[in-house]
Parts: sequence; structure tokens; C-alpha cells
Amino acid sequence: MDQDLRTRIMSAVDARFDEQTQFLSELTAHPSTRGNEQCAQDFMAAALGERGFDVDRWQIDVDDIAHLPGFSPVIGKYDDAVNVVGTLPSTGTGRSLILNGHIDVVPEGPLDMWDTPPYQPHVDDGWMYGRGAGDMKAGLASNLYALDALRHLGLAPAAKVIYQSVVEEECTGNGALACLQRGYTADAALIPEPFAEELVTAQLGVIWFQVHLKGIPVHVAYAGSGSNAIEAAIPLIAALHGMEARWNGTDRRHNEYGHVHHPLNLNIGKFEGGDWASSVPAWCVFDVRMGLFPGQDIQEAKREIEEVLNDAAQSNEFLRNNHPEIVYHGFHAEGYSLAEDDTAVASVAISTLDRAHHNVTGKDLNKVSITATTDARFFGLYADTPALVYGPTAEAIHGFNERVDLESVRRVTQATALFVADWCGLEAI
Amino acid sequence: MDQDLRTRIMSAVDARFDEQTQFLSELTAHPSTRGNEQCAQDFMAAALGERGFDVDRWQIDVDDIAHLPGFSPVIGKYDDAVNVVGTLPSTGTGRSLILNGHIDVVPEGPLDMWDTPPYQPHVDDGWMYGRGAGDMKAGLASNLYALDALRHLGLAPAAKVIYQSVVEEECTGNGALACLQRGYTADAALIPEPFAEELVTAQLGVIWFQVHLKGIPVHVAYAGSGSNAIEAAIPLIAALHGMEARWNGTDRRHNEYGHVHHPLNLNIGKFEGGDWASSVPAWCVFDVRMGLFPGQDIQEAKREIEEVLNDAAQSNEFLRNNHPEIVYHGFHAEGYSLAEDDTAVASVAISTLDRAHHNVTGKDLNKVSITATTDARFFGLYADTPALVYGPTAEAIHGFNERVDLESVRRVTQATALFVADWCGLEAI
Repeated sequence: MDQDLRTRIMSAVDARFDEQTQFLSELTAHPSTRGNEQCAQDFMAAALGERGFDVDRWQIDVDDIAHLPGFSPVIGKYDDAVNVVGTLPSTGTGRSLILNGHIDVVPEGPLDMWDTPPYQPHVDDGWMYGRGAGDMKAGLASNLYALDALRHLGLAPAAKVIYQSVVEEECTGNGALACLQRGYTADAALIPEPFAEELVTAQLGVIWFQVHLKGIPVHVAYAGSGSNAIEAAIPLIAALHGMEARWNGTDRRHNEYGHVHHPLNLNIGKFEGGDWASSVPAWCVFDVRMGLFPGQDIQEAKREIEEVLNDAAQSNEFLRNNHPEIVYHGFHAEGYSLAEDDTAVASVAISTLDRAHHNVTGKDLNKVSITATTDARFFGLYADTPALVYGPTAEAIHGFNERVDLESVRRVTQATALFVADWCGLEAI
Repeated sequence: MDQDLRTRIMSAVDARFDEQTQFLSELTAHPSTRGNEQCAQDFMAAALGERGFDVDRWQIDVDDIAHLPGFSPVIGKYDDAVNVVGTLPSTGTGRSLILNGHIDVVPEGPLDMWDTPPYQPHVDDGWMYGRGAGDMKAGLASNLYALDALRHLGLAPAAKVIYQSVVEEECTGNGALACLQRGYTADAALIPEPFAEELVTAQLGVIWFQVHLKGIPVHVAYAGSGSNAIEAAIPLIAALHGMEARWNGTDRRHNEYGHVHHPLNLNIGKFEGGDWASSVPAWCVFDVRMGLFPGQDIQEAKREIEEVLNDAAQSNEFLRNNHPEIVYHGFHAEGYSLAEDDTAVASVAISTLDRAHHNVTGKDLNKVSITATTDARFFGLYADTPALVYGPTAEAIHGFNERVDLESVRRVTQATALFVADWCGLEAI
């Protein structure tokens, strides 16, 4: 690819970046929290249809995927979990590519903590604000407008490109898994998660579990004879933090995380218990998220979590009589390290992205080990497909006043367009 | 009152005790938790109307009572808070009486902890099971059937009797307060709360408060830079228990509670926080109930609670930056000690009840200092009316498988009928 073509591709992204920003704003306005993605998926399916993609829109069926490696347990049905995939077929002989992004966003939390409403995106000083603007609707927009730039130059990828807008990234990954099960494969995948224009070469695993406590409540006048289920959680939380400290110990570090301060975070993300101020609470449930290193076995992790909770229960009178029940509900996500993929295809994919990034930014592509998970694991672990996680700079993802840097989105879109051109090759439309 | 009349009154209670049990069962079947009392109040109003009471049924208006001593703050409206009062007028010259009971019940909690459904009452081995059967629908039934027994003998109280079925006993007491504001007064009040056929001569005050915490959440991958609002509650709970220990200290004991083990209980009754396992929680709210001794000043107690929470917040980095907000919502109930009422009318009321109890049981009436509150405080503190809390034996009130001892209900009904006869005097219908 000559410099002239590269310049034309980057200019083509520039030429419609205002339109791309408008698209991102409209997409971010859809409050696509888990269970509420359909309206945003309609928007995505329409955008793909207008552009001539073959659009596939289907409801995930747990029975199709529950037996597959990488499946995460879910409670309830998937009646509202709909994936959208658009395919650009090609008769060319280039390398095929999946451009993946997730449509689901995490809950916005208390509205009064936002300076402006989370689903009324707005731009201020070069940042777009809104829940999901960074994580990761900017990435979905970038994938789409990178292909748009090529098309407006009269060019198409010389290999099949599969555009994916999936659900469930934020809780199970079963959306990406369902794409795999449906037969969508390619020579590489690109996922523009918002990691500041760095290439993610290692990501953690994540496990979610709920702890249910139930005891015998009484009128608070006799509290001494009752058992407070809410307060019984406190020693369990302390024991889990003890486990967290052990897992982060230098003896257990994965080598991609040797330099990272406290990579594995345990989070008590949700807590609910009791019904009435003057009744000793009979029950509580709390939700825990815990990180795992790549290579750390999930079944082994679960055994250790259960042991820690059961041991802690032994040293507490209430818990000894009312054993904690552990419910797995959400992530059973293994870690994944692209850095450990020593195949030629991975190496070429990385160097191709490195070149595209350098062309846009004038800088080398930094590599980063992240302390979260992404859907990259499905491609890397279960489909022998190198997955490049490379996206824009965002702040306060999962927080208030989430925002994404629009100039960073522009650069990532340009780098993506160059990557597609280089990886797939180009042909005239 | 001669022995023959006493025997006839007790027999009249016996004669319709099966009907009374059926009435109690029907009343208990109404799930009259706070906000859902109307159907049970319809049932009570109908029962009073059939019996010839002058029925007064009205919606509580906060504006009518908010300025009165004993008012407890509420959040939200009282659109669904309806009191029912039935009056039996009399031209007699006896002493007038209020027979009071509350229709509201506390939430039933998780259904799977009940052996049988909480609102499908049933009788087993002499106990009636169901939420509210003991606390205190058995008392409402007892008050009604005590008067029925007299009527079936062709007798009526020789003074005005006011039958009250009030809401809000379990959270504010504003139902009883609204009766007072509406002008219902008498020479004494009887409240058959389920305290095992003992006379309550001291009851605690109760204060409810909510603690609201709010912080800045982030993606859990960067948990170190965030602040977990759920875990920030833990040191506050510990500090509140420290306060509880100090308030229970021997130096602060009220003399009616010198012998009671740990009279003042602090209860964390409800806890809610966070939205998502993988987001550091931005917020939590927990509900606290704390006991107070009779004579303990509520405003002073509030100041101490606030000081304890603020001091604890100072020693925690998150809380220092995100001060706990304290919201008062529910009980501002002062303690009340009938034992300290040295008026002649109180003394006569107690000895009259003692006599009735002895006639039925052959035993002296025991006196008890309870570690809960009741609506008795409104009569005693704000209307110079001695309030006798005397009701049947119940178990697991506010718990699972709540039950009331039917033979105890029978005895309390008989004692109540004898008390009415003796206190008010009797006249032919």
C-alpha cells in the first residue's frame, strides 16, 4: 500500500468524521443496558443494511452454546438477547477479518451523580460524554466508518469482513460465543475496546458469583437470639479480600502481569438484604467479581473460592448454622494472552496493526496487559484466531460522566481502515 | 361484680371462641403490610358496623399531625393510610375506655423460609400460624369478642368504649397519633400486644434512620482508584455497635431496665447498594433501628448518632471525601413507663386488670419491661391516659412461622371482658 493510498484512506475517514460523531451520538442515546439492547440493535442492523451488508439478526439460544468451552452460566432466559452480524462477502483472496464490538452497556447508577443525563450524549472540549460512549459504542462506530471510508474511495476489502454487534460482553461473553457457534470465523479479529490506542496483549479472566445468606430473623427486641444475615456477610467479605491478597502474591503472578500493581481485583459490586428496619434481617445476597490470571483454571478457582467461604463460615456462629450458598451467575471467563500466541498469523496481524498505528500517529504501538476481560478470549482461546484489542481513549467507563476522546476515535478509525486495507487487501467495488 | 356474673362473662367468651378463631383466621389472611392495609380495614369496618358501632374511617393527613409531639417523620404520602375507629356510645356514668390494636404487619420475608404460606393461616396443636396472627390481629379479635361476650349477655359497658384499628404501629405510630388528634380520648386504654399475658409497665423508645453513602465508582479493573460504597458502610456499622454498647452501659440504664440483659438493640435491618458486579459500587443505603430508654431525649440521641457516624467517617478515606447522609424516616418514638405513672387512675386501671387476670388464670399479673415500643406511648405521654399493654402469647413475631397460642387468646379475651365490665361498669342493653 503506497503512501498516497494511505493518505486518501485517512482523508476519507476525516471527510465523514462529523457524520461518524453524529452516528456515535445517536447510538449512545440508546440505553442498551443488559436486557434492553434491542432498540440499539435495530439501529445497528439498519446501519448495516443501508450499507449493503448481509445482515443476520438472531436471538441467542442457551441450548446452542451451553456445552461450549467459554460458556458462562446465566439465570433466566435469553428472550431479549439478540446479536447482529453483517457480512461483506468477497471473492478476493485476502485475509478475512472480524470487526467485533459489544452493544451492551453497564448500568448508569444514580442519575444525580451525572453532570448531564447519561443517555443524552453531548460533546464538550473534544470529548463525547454518555454511558457507553467509550465502552464501547465508539468502537462500533469506528469499525463501521473505517469500512465506509474504503467504500467511499470505491474500494472493498479483498476478503470476507464480518461486522459483529454482540450482546452480553459485560456479564458473560455469551454473545460473542454465540457468533462463534453460528459459524462466524475469520483469519483475525479486531475489537476496538477503549484502551487508549494501545494493543492489549494480555487480559485477565473474570469470575462472578453471588453469595446467598439466610438465617432466622426475630423481632429486633430479641436481637440477641436472632441472627443478622446482613452483618454475617462482613467476615465473608474480609475472607474474600484475604484470598484476593494471596492470588496477587508474587508467587502466583502470570508473567504478563509481573509489573502490574495489584492486577486481580475483587469487587463487592452489589448487596441486598433485609425487608424492615425493625426485623432482624433473614437474608442477604451479594455479588462478587474476581479477576483470574491467564492460564488460571476456573474450576480450581471456584473450588478455592468455596473453600475460603466455607472456612470463614466455620468461624462464625450464625454462618456455621446457616451455610452460605454460592451461586454462579455471569462470567466464567478465562484469561487470554495474545503475547503467548506464537503463530505466524498472530505475528503478522500484530505487525500489520503496528504499521497502521504508526502511519496514523507516528508512534510505535504500545502493548498493554489489562486488568479486565474482553470478548477477545473467544477468538483466541476457542477459535485459534488472533484477536487484536485496540481502541480509543476513554475515561470513567463503568463510572459517572463516562467520556471518549473524539480525536482518539478519529485516529483509531483511520488506523482500522489502514489495517483492513493492509490485512484483507483491497479491490475495486 | 359477683362471681356468677364473672362466670357468665367467661362462658360467653367460650361460647363464641370458635367464631373468634375463625374471625382471627380471616383477618390474618389479609396481607396488611404497610401500604396494603385497606382490605383488612374494610373487613374491620364491616365487623364494627354489623355490631352497631358508630364507624369512623378516615385517611390520615400528615398536615393534621406533623406538629404534634410524638409525630414520626415519613417519606411519601399517606394516600393509603386509613384508620378505622368504632365508638359504642353510652349514657352511663362509668369510666370510658379505648381498646386499641394495629392492623399493619411487618413484611413476611422470603416465602421459602415459611413452612406454610404466611397469609394462609392454619391451626396446629393449639397455635394459629400466620404473619400478624400474633402481632397483633389476635389482639384486635380479642378486643372485639370481649365486647361481643357482654352484648350476648344483654349487657353493655356503662361508659363510652372506643374500638381502634390503626395503621403505622410498626413504623411510626402516626396511626394512633391521628386518633388522638381526631379527639378520641378516654379514661384508660388497653392494647393487647402479644406479651404473654404480662402487663407491660415500661417500653423502650425507638428511632429509625437511614445512612446514605455515595462515592465515585470506576471500572473494577481500576478498583484501587475507586471507592467501594458498600464496603465503606462496614466501619460505620462497627461504630454504631460501639455506641450501642455505651448506651447499654450500667451508667446509662433506666431503672425499669436495670435487670434486663442488653435492652437497647441496634439493628441493621435493610441494606441495598450497587448495580453491577463489575462496577465499583457508587452508593449504598442501610436502615438502622436503635432502642432508647424512657426519658432519653430523641433530639439528643440524634445528635449522638450523627456524631458517631461523622467521627467514624473521619477515620476512613472514602468517607472523609463522601460524607454519610443521615435520613430520618420512621420511628421517632419516645420510651414510656406506666410504672412511673403515679396517678390514681393508673393505679386503679392496673389493679382492675390484675383482678381480671387473676379471675381468669388464678395467678397474679406479672409486670414486664419490654425492649420494643408500642402505641401505648401516645396515650401515656401525650394524653395523660394510662395505657395497659396486655395480650396473648405469641412466638416468632417479625420472624418466620409466626404463631399465637389460641388458649392464651381465649384467656386474654376473657380477662378483657372482665376488665371492661369492671372498669366501665355494665348496664342492660
